[in-house]
Amino acid sequence: MALNPQYEDIGKGFVQQYYSIFDDPANRANVVNFYSATESFMTFEGHQIQGAPKILEKVQSLSFQKITRVITTVDSQPTFDGGVLINVLGRLQTDEDQPHAYIQTFVLKPVGVSFFVQHDIFRLALHDV
Amino acid sequence: MALNPQYEDIGKGFVQQYYSIFDDPANRANVVNFYSATESFMTFEGHQIQGAPKILEKVQSLSFQKITRVITTVDSQPTFDGGVLINVLGRLQTDEDQPHAYIQTFVLKPVGVSFFVQHDIFRLALHDV
Repeated sequence: MALNPQYEDIGKGFVQQYYSIFDDPANRANVVNFYSATESFMTFEGHQIQGAPKILEKVQSLSFQKITRVITTVDSQPTFDGGVLINVLGRLQTDEDQPHAYIQTFVLKPVGVSFFVQHDIFRLALHDV
Repeated sequence: MALNPQYEDIGKGFVQQYYSIFDDPANRANVVNFYSATESFMTFEGHQIQGAPKILEKVQSLSFQKITRVITTVDSQPTFDGGVLINVLGRLQTDEDQPHAYIQTFVLKPVGVSFFVQHDIFRLALHDV
């Protein structure tokens, strides 16, 4: 499969769509629909899980409700299977906690005319100083 | 090709090896050997380039000499073609500049018994506050 020339728009569009669902407490669990039952990896603050059922469990275990999020940069690259690699740098604040910088990497894998999230790595940018 | 069960060690080993070359001013240009002549993408602070010759130009255009680097986290995932997705969070200081947090994502693509860097995204973690 060829490189997808729309990778930049796909990356930006995905990030907007994903976070609009994730950041809505009533809708958050629906992000599970972006993942494959077996072929999706998530690494959340160093904790590794695989497959939509476990990813849903993880998302549902998050204790905060409200998220205020500001995206700083979205860098996308086309992958050689027609997918998109996306790197997000941003800041978020959950409920009344301190705001934190974070990074999140997604790899979108094409399936038919759409994509699923094959890889997802999330880290708060907390450095030992 | 199957998932590589050594992805964690490969990720950590690669990061150590890559930065030991990159952070040595006399040796820095040799990082070009990690990239493919045509099938490597680099996004450096939002600037996109493709292929080892242009990546070498970019690396040689960097004006600093000394780098002091501290790795905070390395998160790796196996990719379904036998490669490894690596996410690095760290801090670096070039010459006498201010230290900055940064993020770098690599995708290693298997070729024979080794790997090349198919994707590389670098960003200093500078947020508008």
